[in-house]
Amino acid sequence: MRNMTPEQFREKVRSGAFSGPTAGVCDGYVQANLAILPKEDAFVFLLFCQRNPKSCPLIDVTDIGSAIPSASAPGADLRTDLPKYRVYRNGELTDEPTDLNEYWTDDMVAFLIGCSFTFEEALIRNGIPMRHHEEGVNVPMYRTSVDTVPAGKFSGPMVVSMRPMGAGDVVRAVQVTSRFPSVHGAPVHIGNPEEIGIRNLTNPDFGDAVTVRDGETPVFWACGVTPQSVAMHAKPSLMITHAPGHMFVTDLKSEQLGVI
Amino acid sequence: MRNMTPEQFREKVRSGAFSGPTAGVCDGYVQANLAILPKEDAFVFLLFCQRNPKSCPLIDVTDIGSAIPSASAPGADLRTDLPKYRVYRNGELTDEPTDLNEYWTDDMVAFLIGCSFTFEEALIRNGIPMRHHEEGVNVPMYRTSVDTVPAGKFSGPMVVSMRPMGAGDVVRAVQVTSRFPSVHGAPVHIGNPEEIGIRNLTNPDFGDAVTVRDGETPVFWACGVTPQSVAMHAKPSLMITHAPGHMFVTDLKSEQLGVI
Repeated sequence: MRNMTPEQFREKVRSGAFSGPTAGVCDGYVQANLAILPKEDAFVFLLFCQRNPKSCPLIDVTDIGSAIPSASAPGADLRTDLPKYRVYRNGELTDEPTDLNEYWTDDMVAFLIGCSFTFEEALIRNGIPMRHHEEGVNVPMYRTSVDTVPAGKFSGPMVVSMRPMGAGDVVRAVQVTSRFPSVHGAPVHIGNPEEIGIRNLTNPDFGDAVTVRDGETPVFWACGVTPQSVAMHAKPSLMITHAPGHMFVTDLKSEQLGVI
Repeated sequence: MRNMTPEQFREKVRSGAFSGPTAGVCDGYVQANLAILPKEDAFVFLLFCQRNPKSCPLIDVTDIGSAIPSASAPGADLRTDLPKYRVYRNGELTDEPTDLNEYWTDDMVAFLIGCSFTFEEALIRNGIPMRHHEEGVNVPMYRTSVDTVPAGKFSGPMVVSMRPMGAGDVVRAVQVTSRFPSVHGAPVHIGNPEEIGIRNLTNPDFGDAVTVRDGETPVFWACGVTPQSVAMHAKPSLMITHAPGHMFVTDLKSEQLGVI
């Protein structure tokens, strides 16, 4: 599925022929995290995203009641075009459906939030290896002592992902990811994990630990798990997200997100 | 007042000792456009800004009912710290007060939107002269045939400002302003005005005409008049803005807005 167009891939998902994770599909196209909230919570969540653009970079936000992401994939339908969803009621996971036909109501707003796949592609093209790819695991993620800027009921710590690299790659990693603010942008921290409240790199809160070799520098980026973690803590009456790894594939080419 | 701190300047305004325009005050600090809307309109206006980041780059958005711009000037009060305001009811200008003490209610949300003063400073530091400064007039602004991306009741044409320059300065102008997406960012158009529906450069819709010399290229940026023009057309029951030229002075240094 690497060489499918986003339209072809979403058609396959919509028909029920595919319900797996999306890593590696539609090479070169932007994938996005999904969060759906009822109108009553949508304003403060949008405010939260505006105040925390590194954790919650918005790719697209739908009109109230519309499941069509008109800026990023006008031919798509967010009720059917992701392989798997998660439904949370008052912060508790209650269902993991493959479409939202029985859940969608006309007061819902869908948020598409940038994901690190896009900036990892850019790092790899610049010769900076990704240790979690080499080791065949998920990227390690950590809760930090850095608070997000609250908005209404939404608040809590920033979650970061960590990628170790040789000291000679750090400056280039900052330059390359600065070009892509809508997929988390530049790192939020370089070096000593304790500065941001991380005690032990070998014990991530989400994902898997990776090897950090002697002389390597850990580099930390704001992570798309932050808004989900914050939203779960706020316990909205209803919230729907993608299932982990089962993202929405947009029509946008990754390079189109580069600000320069 | 060029060398005042923003705090000193706002104190002067708050005490009633100054109610004039803010061009040139607090050198090096970011000034912002103000738009205040009741909660019922705030979500779709925030959505409109998210969808039109070049016209409506958000510097700060307050909590519902709060007049404190916590991200950009936590010691300020948006009810008293601008020299002059405009109050619109159903799209009609009804008052031009110097504070909002009699208008503010606890369902209001204030939006601070980036203004071109900041990117003009950066252009000037890069040796690119501003014709409207040389000629002592306001920058010329034009309604275009380019539509903004609508959100709910908010829709309408993009308004642009125009700065003429030698062909050799155009590439540098793109580079310099690309660094500042939160004050309109890179140009939206370079060259032939008719391509974006502008018939006659000598007849701007807002501001004043400036000389375009032989061989110069007109360069167009999205303009902060767009959200006001769009909002006036949507006729919200109540909307409060700054009076033209009477901006809010934030605590942010212009360079802090550079994305790289």
